[in-house]
This record gives sequence, C-alpha cells and structure tokens, in this order.
Amino acid sequence: MNAPAHIKKSAHTANPAEHLALLATDDMKDVNAIILERMQSPVGMIPDLAQHLVEAGGKRLRPLLTIACAHLCGGVETAHQKLAAAVEFIHSATLLHDDVIDESDLRRGQKVANRIWGNSASILVGDFLFARAFNLMVETGSLTALDILSTASSIIAEGEVHQLAALRKVDMPEETYMHVIGAKTAALFAAACEVSPVISDRPDSEKEALRRYGQNLGIAFQLVDDALDYGGFESALGKSVGDDFREGKLTLPVIRAIAKADEDELAFWTKVIADHKQDETDLEKAVSILRRTGSLDATIELARHYSSQARQTLEIFAPSEWRSTLEELSDYVVDRVS
Amino acid sequence: MNAPAHIKKSAHTANPAEHLALLATDDMKDVNAIILERMQSPVGMIPDLAQHLVEAGGKRLRPLLTIACAHLCGGVETAHQKLAAAVEFIHSATLLHDDVIDESDLRRGQKVANRIWGNSASILVGDFLFARAFNLMVETGSLTALDILSTASSIIAEGEVHQLAALRKVDMPEETYMHVIGAKTAALFAAACEVSPVISDRPDSEKEALRRYGQNLGIAFQLVDDALDYGGFESALGKSVGDDFREGKLTLPVIRAIAKADEDELAFWTKVIADHKQDETDLEKAVSILRRTGSLDATIELARHYSSQARQTLEIFAPSEWRSTLEELSDYVVDRVS
Repeated sequence: MNAPAHIKKSAHTANPAEHLALLATDDMKDVNAIILERMQSPVGMIPDLAQHLVEAGGKRLRPLLTIACAHLCGGVETAHQKLAAAVEFIHSATLLHDDVIDESDLRRGQKVANRIWGNSASILVGDFLFARAFNLMVETGSLTALDILSTASSIIAEGEVHQLAALRKVDMPEETYMHVIGAKTAALFAAACEVSPVISDRPDSEKEALRRYGQNLGIAFQLVDDALDYGGFESALGKSVGDDFREGKLTLPVIRAIAKADEDELAFWTKVIADHKQDETDLEKAVSILRRTGSLDATIELARHYSSQARQTLEIFAPSEWRSTLEELSDYVVDRVS
Repeated sequence: MNAPAHIKKSAHTANPAEHLALLATDDMKDVNAIILERMQSPVGMIPDLAQHLVEAGGKRLRPLLTIACAHLCGGVETAHQKLAAAVEFIHSATLLHDDVIDESDLRRGQKVANRIWGNSASILVGDFLFARAFNLMVETGSLTALDILSTASSIIAEGEVHQLAALRKVDMPEETYMHVIGAKTAALFAAACEVSPVISDRPDSEKEALRRYGQNLGIAFQLVDDALDYGGFESALGKSVGDDFREGKLTLPVIRAIAKADEDELAFWTKVIADHKQDETDLEKAVSILRRTGSLDATIELARHYSSQARQTLEIFAPSEWRSTLEELSDYVVDRVS
C-alpha cells in the first residue's frame, strides 16, 4: 500500500508523527468531520468548550493509530473512522477531567478549558463527550470494539484513581508506577490499535500484535513524558515543566532517584513529596539530583526498551509504508527528547 | 403474573415504591449482587467510595423500573438484571459528578462522597462506574439497549450543561426548564423502562409505551423534587432544603412566581438569583412568595398532569400486580409531598 505521490515528496522531511499524519490526510479529514459533527449541541457551551479542546489540537496521535492500523489490516472503512473519532472523544473527556483534578493552567501551551469555563463545565462536557464516544461505537455495530473500548475506559479511570491514591507517597514501588501508566495511558493506545483488526475481521495474531504495539508504545510515551516533566523545555512540551513535582506525583525518575538516595536526599524527597513543602529552589534541586543519579537517563532507557518491543510486534505484517512509519514512530516517541 | 404469597400479606401496608421493591425482592437481590461485584477493584478507593454511595442506598427506583417493566413484558432475564445494574451505575456516576458541581453537603441524609474522599476521587470513580455500566451493557449483546442508554447518557450530560449555563438567570423560559428536566432526569427513567421490552423483543407499541411511562414519570418526579426544595422537611427529603435557591438554580416554582411578580418582587428575585446576593432571611421570604402566589401548588399540579400521562401509557398492558403497582407509583411520586 503506497502513499499518494504528492505526499511522498515532503514525507522524508517530516518526523514520523507528522509523516503518519500526512499519509492519513484524507482519512483524518473524515475523522475530523465526524468529531466536529458529533460535538455539536444546541447547548452552546458544549461546542464552545469542545472546539477549544479540538483547536488546541495536539497530534491526534490516538485516532491516527486507529487509522494507520486499519491500513495495515487492508484498508479503512467508515467504522474505523467512527472508532478513531470515539477514541479521540474518550481521550478528550479524560483530558477535561484530568485538568480539573491536576489544577493545571496550561495544556499544549493553551489555557486549559476549566480556567475559562469553570470546573463544572469541564466535568459535564467530559461526560458528554464520553457518552458521544459510545454513540459512535454503537453505530459501528461491533460489540467486540465496544467491549475493548469500554474495558479500556474503566481501566483508564482505575489507573487514574490508583495514581490519585498514591499521590504524595514516597514509597510507591516501581511496579505500581508501571501498572498505573499501563492503565492511565497505554490502555487507550492499545485499544485504539486493537479495534482496527477487529473491525477488519483479521486473525487473532494481528489483533494481539497491534494491541501489544499500542500498549508498549503507550508505556514508552508516558515514560518519556514523565522524564520531560523534569527536563524538557516548556515551549517544546507545550505544558509547564515541573507539574508532576508540584502536584507531588511520584514518577519513575523520582522513584529511581529515591532508590539510590542517601539520608539527606531521602529527607529532601520526603519534604517535597510526602509533606508537600516546596521552596522556590526545590524543583531545580530535584532536577539536579535526577541528573546526577542518572534517573532521567534510566527512564529514557526503559522507554527505549518498550519502544523496541512495540517495533517488534509489527514484524508479522507485510512491509509497507504504513508499517515502516509505525516502526519509526515507536523510535520517535523516545527520540523526541533530544 | 402474581406475587408470591409471603409478599402479598404486607404489600397493602407499603407505599407503591416499597411495594414494588417487595415484589421485585428476588430480582433486586441479583441486581445488587451484580452492582457489588462490578464496583470491585484492586484500587481500594473505588469500592470504598462506591460502597458509601450504594449504602446511602436510596430507593433504587431506576433499576426497579427496569425490573418491573421486564415483568410487564413477560419476565426477567439475566440481561434485564445487568441493564438494571448499568442504569444504577449511570445514575450513581451522575450523582457523584453532580455533588462536586453543586457543592452539596448532604445526599439522602448522608455526607456526600466528595466531602470525604475529595472532588478528584468523586470525578474519577464516577468515570469508572460509567465505564463499568457500558461493560455490563456490552455483555447483554444488545446493540439497541446500548444505543438507548448511551443516547440517554449524552442527553443527561447535555441537560446538566444546559442547567449550568442557565444558572443565575432570572429570564429562563418555562420551556427551557421543561427541556432541562426532561433531559437531566427523565431521560434515564425513560431509558430504564424502554430497555426491558427491547431485551424481551416486544412490539414497538410496548417499547414506545414504556419509554413514555418513564419519561412522564421522570418529569413528574423532578417537578415534585423542585417543589420540595422549597417546602419539604429536611429529614423527609434527605437533602438540605433550599439547595436550589442557594445555588441560584431557577426551577419551576420560581419561574412561575417571577411571571406574576410585581416590581418589588422582581427586584428581590434579581438580587437573590441573578446577583446571587442572599441574606439569612431571603429563603424564608422566597418560600412565602412562592406560597402566596400559588407557585408551589401550580408545580405540583403540573406534576400531577405528567403522572396521569404516565399512568395512561400502561393501558395497553394486561392487568397484573406489576401494572397496578406501576400505576400507583405514578400517583405516589406526586402524593409523597403530603
């Protein structure tokens, strides 16, 4: 399956996420039309708020995965496009609720919706988008796709509650952290990929391979995000640096640093995370400990392991530009750090 | 279809809601077992919080409707019980989110969950229960039931946003109010009833009749709730009196009073609702205006109209104890005022 000529020209200059978006231009036009249509409501606050979220845009990575996996499995049907839109709605609903919970100010460099319309509107429009996602899934007529995405949705919420319950605890085991990011982030990546072979009625081996591609990619993605929170540039990442630190959210870089901490450092982490007492210079101090102990590098290294797992799962598919771009994407989610 | 002998004895002493619960004792045991099983999670905060909500209990009116309608349609299957549990989960998720939005202190006479576990936990556990509701629906294998309940869910959220957008507006038309309560409350009553004939594969006339029964019952129920907020006793209602007033939520009693207001009264309503400036004696003054202008009576009268509409829809069903109890229930949602 080859890309149209007009795309090939520019494709080699783009990063793999952009390349994927270019390859999927026509499908994503349809997906975006579905998104725009289904967020309409006579209650003006709903499209206003949804529009704000949609325009902030982001990479639309999850629906892109659904479309790319559909191409790997023989081609895109309307049902794939509807599920891609449903996946983006579930993601958007999660973002709206997360922003209320995290009390963030920025998302992708834009003011978050709840700072403009208030927390109540964000909670309710999140619920609306979530319900609309299920409307879209029902229209595909696939109970299996509904099962995969509703199960992913409860796993996501469970992961978020788990993270909340672990907030400000310095003794969170690495295993718990991996479980949390597997749930809150990777479950939707996995579901976004798996529904495509399901709709295309492909063999179980392909469903399993693409589910695992999404799961591993999602874990790599979140690990890198958590490292970037202590090291990226605000403008590049589009969110504030140090968010996790300020919220007292324990992520892998800190878990690894705590494992190596001497008495003084343990006292420091206890003060800033468990007691949640942070001075102005504490973020800087945290970053310096994370760098010195190699905890950021170790996090990126682990991300590279998952990214390589993701790449391997694609080996059962015939070579194509879609496959190679998905392979490159798995490297890119880690390489975007540099 | 007659009730078991041990129930008949006590049935005539109970009010219709309790009578319905007695008739449905065995089915509701199964429904409750499903509810308990599906709110489990290794993340302890989820069952803790869900348990609190479930123990606060309430009348389980919505799942009872699903079960009662199943009996009207020939009997209860496992799918009906799962849908009844799903309906209760959707309702519980809505309550959890509502309590965050309304900043209430009490729900059914109990401290609301967000005052114990915090707003974040209530938002996320609400999301979890909502996702689990869809898991249950998927298990029934009925795409039509999924369609009905996912559509109801988006209508509920839309109604809640509509209500939020209309907060503190004294010029809300009665039509808008009726639209809001039709969405935020009656849509789930309607769906809870309609899914039963759908699962039992009954003719469209019965689906339509039971959908309309639920819709009219739900509207009557909300009208009475809105009147009780200005007149019931705190202990009887199980929630604080004057909640709507304090939030600046315009409901029918006030809409009717504003329609009849002289200049002084209009200034009063504008001050307490639009400007949201309330003194200690203002609730008392509001109640006295509502009584003098007959606005509470007019609200109850309208509720009686919808309750009688609900009763009429049941005429197409053969006489049975289930039908007569549902008929009595439609009167009772209004009569509980006195």
